[in-house]
Amino acid sequence: MEGKIEVVKCSLLGSVLSNLLLVLGTSLFCGGVVNLGSDQPYDRTQADVSTGLLILGVLCQSLPLMLRYAVSAGEHSVAADTTGLDLSRACSLVMLLAYVAYLFFQLKTHAQLFEPQEVADEDGEAEEDEQAVIGFASGLFWLAFKTVLIAILSEYVVGTIEPTSKSWGLSVSFISIILLPIVGNAAEHAGAIIFALKNKLDITLGVALGSATQISMFVVPLSVIVAWIAGIQMDLDFKLLETGCLFVSVIVTAFTLQDGSSHYLKGILLLLCYIVIGACFFVTRQPASHANNNGAGLLLPTDTLGAQVA
Amino acid sequence: MEGKIEVVKCSLLGSVLSNLLLVLGTSLFCGGVVNLGSDQPYDRTQADVSTGLLILGVLCQSLPLMLRYAVSAGEHSVAADTTGLDLSRACSLVMLLAYVAYLFFQLKTHAQLFEPQEVADEDGEAEEDEQAVIGFASGLFWLAFKTVLIAILSEYVVGTIEPTSKSWGLSVSFISIILLPIVGNAAEHAGAIIFALKNKLDITLGVALGSATQISMFVVPLSVIVAWIAGIQMDLDFKLLETGCLFVSVIVTAFTLQDGSSHYLKGILLLLCYIVIGACFFVTRQPASHANNNGAGLLLPTDTLGAQVA
Amino acid sequence: MEGKIEVVKCSLLGSVLSNLLLVLGTSLFCGGVVNLGSDQPYDRTQADVSTGLLILGVLCQSLPLMLRYAVSAGEHSVAADTTGLDLSRACSLVMLLAYVAYLFFQLKTHAQLFEPQEVADEDGEAEEDEQAVIGFASGLFWLAFKTVLIAILSEYVVGTIEPTSKSWGLSVSFISIILLPIVGNAAEHAGAIIFALKNKLDITLGVALGSATQISMFVVPLSVIVAWIAGIQMDLDFKLLETGCLFVSVIVTAFTLQDGSSHYLKGILLLLCYIVIGACFFVTRQPASHANNNGAGLLLPTDTLGAQVA
Repeated sequence: MEGKIEVVKCSLLGSVLSNLLLVLGTSLFCGGVVNLGSDQPYDRTQADVSTGLLILGVLCQSLPLMLRYAVSAGEHSVAADTTGLDLSRACSLVMLLAYVAYLFFQLKTHAQLFEPQEVADEDGEAEEDEQAVIGFASGLFWLAFKTVLIAILSEYVVGTIEPTSKSWGLSVSFISIILLPIVGNAAEHAGAIIFALKNKLDITLGVALGSATQISMFVVPLSVIVAWIAGIQMDLDFKLLETGCLFVSVIVTAFTLQDGSSHYLKGILLLLCYIVIGACFFVTRQPASHANNNGAGLLLPTDTLGAQVA
Repeated sequence: MEGKIEVVKCSLLGSVLSNLLLVLGTSLFCGGVVNLGSDQPYDRTQADVSTGLLILGVLCQSLPLMLRYAVSAGEHSVAADTTGLDLSRACSLVMLLAYVAYLFFQLKTHAQLFEPQEVADEDGEAEEDEQAVIGFASGLFWLAFKTVLIAILSEYVVGTIEPTSKSWGLSVSFISIILLPIVGNAAEHAGAIIFALKNKLDITLGVALGSATQISMFVVPLSVIVAWIAGIQMDLDFKLLETGCLFVSVIVTAFTLQDGSSHYLKGILLLLCYIVIGACFFVTRQPASHANNNGAGLLLPTDTLGAQVA
Repeated sequence: MEGKIEVVKCSLLGSVLSNLLLVLGTSLFCGGVVNLGSDQPYDRTQADVSTGLLILGVLCQSLPLMLRYAVSAGEHSVAADTTGLDLSRACSLVMLLAYVAYLFFQLKTHAQLFEPQEVADEDGEAEEDEQAVIGFASGLFWLAFKTVLIAILSEYVVGTIEPTSKSWGLSVSFISIILLPIVGNAAEHAGAIIFALKNKLDITLGVALGSATQISMFVVPLSVIVAWIAGIQMDLDFKLLETGCLFVSVIVTAFTLQDGSSHYLKGILLLLCYIVIGACFFVTRQPASHANNNGAGLLLPTDTLGAQVA
């Protein structure tokens, strides 16, 4: 059961990374190459709001991790009746609250910020298509559809990832953090690239950042709350490597999107960040306690921190 | 004595967090709701200068922490006659130097940047009030007054926080990092909100960021230097959890304030960050070595890093 | 041999820190003081591109470190046939790829962004001088010259740093991270200050950020690849303290340069960051395992993480 929760958490985190780095990176790169001669502007406010939410998400996900390390280092302790799990659940509630405020901001009070700017676009039909992509009804539809899709996908994956890992010779981490989200985000990926090719970066950012924000601030905390109701102990304590990658990814994205104009090098940078993170998870294996059958082949260079798990 | 120093450090750190997240967040939220239809502009330069100083402060506070962890991990070592305390004192001197340069910049060479912009403000009386808030003399007055106030408050608190903690059933960390600064910053809080409601965000930022900068770059290092002169070993080594929260808070504030315009969602994000950090310190307890009388009830999940304090 | 690799890595990292903080800080400070009354503008795009690359570099250098810590904490494990060294080499290849893309962007498709803006500059001779500094041919020349210079310098230093450390009473870390790069960057330092005094900050940024980017994204990964070919085990795992300093330095520089205008306080902030980092490495010593002859005099406060190296 614990291993299944880990796979769900990894695939959700991987989905955020994939949207932030792979989908956005490919889109900005393709858009930058195709529209090389012309400006590629976008509205900064939308990007700023999303990155603000994502940083709050990083804070919520890093607090349980830091608390665990601080307790391990003897700097803090927690009472017997309150654990990091309570903190994760409190953080999840706050994240859901933030997402509701974000939806209210996006759909009610500041909807004009999130509408594509129709400068010099005379094609009425195209306009309708675009508005259908980000309208209120379709927004709700995507919200529901993607939540169900990810739930089903996660459920399916949890059962098949172990045999897949063995038959393909890849680690569970790599499959759930890298491979799975690439498949799961194929729809956003295609849509984001198409609009980037048309030099409509506002829609591209809406798709890529919107998906990342939604998963990070809605699907992840909702999973924790649903698991809480079901009596399952799922926390927000993504591990050191995953949290570090998420933090740097959000920082890279925030700095990349801070000047309201894009070029292909920004896309390349985001893509290379994704490749590097992918390489890192390609190298890692599940810890010995979760993969006892492979235990004999594991190398544990534990001479630096003195922590002997095996 | 060591416990008292910890309380002083915690309340100073909590005061910075409170100004950055609670005071600024409430102000931006209230200002955003009241002035929903109109723009809420502010001068970016002032915010940039303050966040620059705050990041320098984060660096100065994280270096002793990182040094301690690096030494613990065996990556570095320190000579017998030089310890992290020397580093903290050197950092404190640099921080004071930075604050003097900041005052010189703010009051002498670039004073025009920090004056409220009186666009379309015909009310002479109101102008005088505003200038009284940020004038040179009142600036010095606030500097002296707040330093003394915090010193007295800290002294008073150190004696009463232990019994309060027991009678209220709250941890010392939570009281000194969260509750105490809310009371201590009530004046700034009220002032910042009032000017935000009038859509004068430059003054709001001056109060909230100014207070945070002053505590982080003047009160904290001055305390270290004064303790040095008095022969007390006070360092800048805020612990992992506190330093991590401060770092993310400064990053969130910097990204929130980088586009020269505000809306209520920014305030909500800052407020939710504060709530999450508050929840984290609500869960923590003082480590076993500082609270031996509670030791029997402590849960120490030390299986991950192998550090056994108890 | 291992100690020599450490010195090379330290001097490269120190060179990046020196360019980002010391060279840029001195230039912005001097330029700010001399041109106090006038604006000091620069082109943001150039700074954004460099900071984007530097953040990718930080990610590539922190992944092997985080992997090592995650493995030590038992959160992850690596297979016996793949180690952090493979990850470092993969990261190095990605960094070289990013640098090639950056050169292509800078010299081919977006060369106009990196040319100094000749607004109101009638002096034809000065123009030629400036273009000679950043032209294509001289760019390649600098690339080759500095690579060779650093290689020779590193080679020379590796042999003489141990006796120097003993005779001067300074630690190897401090000499290789702080003192050495100050000497090595003297040429950039002088050039950057001269152009800052003339209020041509675009050239200053091109020199300082360009050098930092070049070392971080070209010289460092190339060294890893060359060592790989030569059968030497050099990885990207700069240690906790070094990586933390690099990360905060890049963040400080990115926030400092994000608004397209400079003043002297920005220079002071960068300079003070450098002084603080210098003070930190002045305090540290090489770990006991690398300096057995000094082992008796070492203080190892390892009571917090339980890691006993000695």
